[in-house]
Amino acid sequence: MTAKVEERLRASALSNKVMSAQDAAKLVKDGMTLGLSGFTRAGDAKAIPLALVDRANAGEKFKVNVFTGASLGSDIDAKMSDAGIVNKRLPFQLDRTMRGHINKQDMYFVDQHLSVTAEYLRQNAIDPIDIAVVEAVAITEDGQLIPTTSVGNSPIYVQYAKQVIIELNLASYEALEGIHDIYVPEEQGKRGAIPLMNASDRIGTIGIPLDFDKVAAIVLTDQVDTPTTMAAIDDETQQIADNIIDFLRNEVKEGRLTDTLAPLQSGVGSVANAVLGGMVNSEFKDLEVYSEVLQDSVFDLIDAGKVKFASGCATSLTADKLDTVFGNLDKYKDKLCLRPQEISNHPELVRRMGLIAMNTALEFDIYGNVNSTHVAGNKMMNGIGGSGDFARAARISIFITKSYAKEGKISSVVPFVSHVDHNEHDVDVLVTEQGLADLRGLAPRQRAELIIEKCVHPDYKPALLAYVEEANTRGGQTPHVLEKAFSFHTNLSKYGQMIAPEDEK
Amino acid sequence: MTAKVEERLRASALSNKVMSAQDAAKLVKDGMTLGLSGFTRAGDAKAIPLALVDRANAGEKFKVNVFTGASLGSDIDAKMSDAGIVNKRLPFQLDRTMRGHINKQDMYFVDQHLSVTAEYLRQNAIDPIDIAVVEAVAITEDGQLIPTTSVGNSPIYVQYAKQVIIELNLASYEALEGIHDIYVPEEQGKRGAIPLMNASDRIGTIGIPLDFDKVAAIVLTDQVDTPTTMAAIDDETQQIADNIIDFLRNEVKEGRLTDTLAPLQSGVGSVANAVLGGMVNSEFKDLEVYSEVLQDSVFDLIDAGKVKFASGCATSLTADKLDTVFGNLDKYKDKLCLRPQEISNHPELVRRMGLIAMNTALEFDIYGNVNSTHVAGNKMMNGIGGSGDFARAARISIFITKSYAKEGKISSVVPFVSHVDHNEHDVDVLVTEQGLADLRGLAPRQRAELIIEKCVHPDYKPALLAYVEEANTRGGQTPHVLEKAFSFHTNLSKYGQMIAPEDEK
Repeated sequence: MTAKVEERLRASALSNKVMSAQDAAKLVKDGMTLGLSGFTRAGDAKAIPLALVDRANAGEKFKVNVFTGASLGSDIDAKMSDAGIVNKRLPFQLDRTMRGHINKQDMYFVDQHLSVTAEYLRQNAIDPIDIAVVEAVAITEDGQLIPTTSVGNSPIYVQYAKQVIIELNLASYEALEGIHDIYVPEEQGKRGAIPLMNASDRIGTIGIPLDFDKVAAIVLTDQVDTPTTMAAIDDETQQIADNIIDFLRNEVKEGRLTDTLAPLQSGVGSVANAVLGGMVNSEFKDLEVYSEVLQDSVFDLIDAGKVKFASGCATSLTADKLDTVFGNLDKYKDKLCLRPQEISNHPELVRRMGLIAMNTALEFDIYGNVNSTHVAGNKMMNGIGGSGDFARAARISIFITKSYAKEGKISSVVPFVSHVDHNEHDVDVLVTEQGLADLRGLAPRQRAELIIEKCVHPDYKPALLAYVEEANTRGGQTPHVLEKAFSFHTNLSKYGQMIAPEDEK
Repeated sequence: MTAKVEERLRASALSNKVMSAQDAAKLVKDGMTLGLSGFTRAGDAKAIPLALVDRANAGEKFKVNVFTGASLGSDIDAKMSDAGIVNKRLPFQLDRTMRGHINKQDMYFVDQHLSVTAEYLRQNAIDPIDIAVVEAVAITEDGQLIPTTSVGNSPIYVQYAKQVIIELNLASYEALEGIHDIYVPEEQGKRGAIPLMNASDRIGTIGIPLDFDKVAAIVLTDQVDTPTTMAAIDDETQQIADNIIDFLRNEVKEGRLTDTLAPLQSGVGSVANAVLGGMVNSEFKDLEVYSEVLQDSVFDLIDAGKVKFASGCATSLTADKLDTVFGNLDKYKDKLCLRPQEISNHPELVRRMGLIAMNTALEFDIYGNVNSTHVAGNKMMNGIGGSGDFARAARISIFITKSYAKEGKISSVVPFVSHVDHNEHDVDVLVTEQGLADLRGLAPRQRAELIIEKCVHPDYKPALLAYVEEANTRGGQTPHVLEKAFSFHTNLSKYGQMIAPEDEK
């Protein structure tokens, strides 16, 4: 072994396990369930999945279940699904190609709250993991696997897998060692409270404990993570961010929050990134982030002295930011922690700390039900991710979206969402570039009035007001005209726009 | 004061606060928000609400917001809503008359997860409580209010109210003192873990601490709780219970549970009662109940030596059982605890202990989304209650309903539920008298297949299979034909049955 490998692979008992990705991939057989590291393209196992794709492309017929943290980089989900080797994928994906295969019904996708996969495995209530394939930056003398840029579900996969393959990534950043905090709850009924009270608390170990007998292979790699791309902040995104900041400012004014707010959770994507970014120039201070994914803006906030600690289960950084952050990790080390997704998203902790949760909606309806996942009811976009873990348990659950899409042909506010991921009980605040509706303590009819007033694009107000008026003639707690509830969606399918041409002014 | 009153009102500093219900009710002014004790007709404040109804019936015009634990007895919700004095009611009701007023849009109803009202109050995010009106069995020397047959939201209402009126119920059971365990979390961000690890743990005080300065009145009452009525167990209810017991038996066989199972939560109503009752003759043993409401069957299970401890926030007993239980409380005292609903339903604890949660559905759809609240989408039945607190956090989340209603004119399984209270992510197992569908780890298309096979009444299988077939031609993760998604409901409204006459065989 080279000096560099010896530096990274410090458990000498494992040095005889080093082999090529091709050899290690031979351990994977038809019908197996794999538990891969990787969350929002960070810290994903790369070599073994790609070696499996090579086997399929060479003509071998096999299928596996692929369980991960969340989305993968390096086009792995695209290549695996194109190669036809995925039977079932869970709990999240974010890949255009794989999405196509899911919606063509070529493969199964199980869309789960990201904190619960670990519980199901522990309960033996889903397919057990045959092989965990986990990226590491190092293996310590005492046998701890140090993850790279995400933790995700790796600890639970390593714990429950029959065999473990480690992708030791020599190109990853040595300085990551010490960033992670690995805490895995005991079985339900045997566990105590999770002893985390603040975002900055460290409650576990710096690595994932390894059972050497289960380590079947160590593959040396040097492929870096796929950077995230981030849409530029447009005027409407900026307006959404401003609306949220105004709301939070008012919460402080009303005495419901102080200027340190409450630990912030923010979903993935450019709007979510912009919302957090908007706080750089705010009066809020000493903020804490307790989130699933740490995007660029979190590090901007740390740089600006606004955020004093950020906890997540993964990073999701653009190319520039990858270098800035991981090239200067000493600067961030005492302000940063990466945890298992079960802990970053745990409802026990979300509720205890009273998070302000900000997640994106595909569409929401006049009563405040949110669709986060399905285009026109049928087609999967990405998955619910952690939004359900956070929204129900949060102090304030905020959902955001632009009020329209496709040059105005689509309204993001509809009479009845075509798929419900978050219902009225879990949605406190809705925000578009048009405005913000604070729904706390309101009954459905009051919610409808406020949502239409504050959040809907002017082009769609007449149609939604007419719907509410007709619905109210039927009475009820949550008035609907069921035969027209999906009219926006059926119009879209028929006319390419949500308002029928004959109903346009 | 009589000796009996002195025995119950032991805080002598408060003896000058005793007054009539009529006088105490004068403290209530138009526009106020009241926090009433009462949960599933147990331990409700009775005298003050009825005195308010008298004021309204005598011609006075006023409205108040009425916040409670859950449902009230003594026809209070009926009388208050008939008298037109309720502006907003939350978080739950279960009254035919009030339901009518809600659906006629005479009043507002805010349907909340039962564990969250306390958080909203603490955050000052809903109307603050002007007057708490709480039934007590005693007030101790050191100033603790001992609740009666429910705890509900009383501790948080007493803590946050500007004034407190106590209904000291001399007809309630003295032996209740010591049954309660009052623990109220600190504000979010300042609280620690809730130190409850097992259903039988006691973590608080036996009463609600009183600030004497806030106690505005003590009213002596002697009206007992309204008993619950319980439909007799019919063959189909028994079959549902049997299906669940078979499922749990198989979980034990597969090694996922032991014969002590996991703490059991069971919703309110005769089906839920029957399911628990079905365990009397099972092989399961040393069971624990950690539930919201303790119905008759829980005490049958204690009597049978099957349940070693039962924790709830309220009882809900039939007339016979009221006497049996509260007349022999010494027999149950070391096996019973009543807690605030925030604690009985707390997701932190539900997930930590890994509850088996069993709740009733009004209808569910082919993908496993559950409607617990709305008839035909519009009309409120009761409310979501605690089902959302339990379902998302539970170890196994089970929903039950008969497969049909109204002599078969209604199928409880529909293409798309007309209101979503629990979505596919939170529903593990669905049960009807037809069978049981274990949905864990299944993708939506697999769920649809299993649900139709196992749960649907034979009369509705052809229509649902035809829907799925047509939906699948459109592809997607969760195939739907949106223009027909509510056809069962619109048929019902048009023809009085869910299948159009021309489509009947």
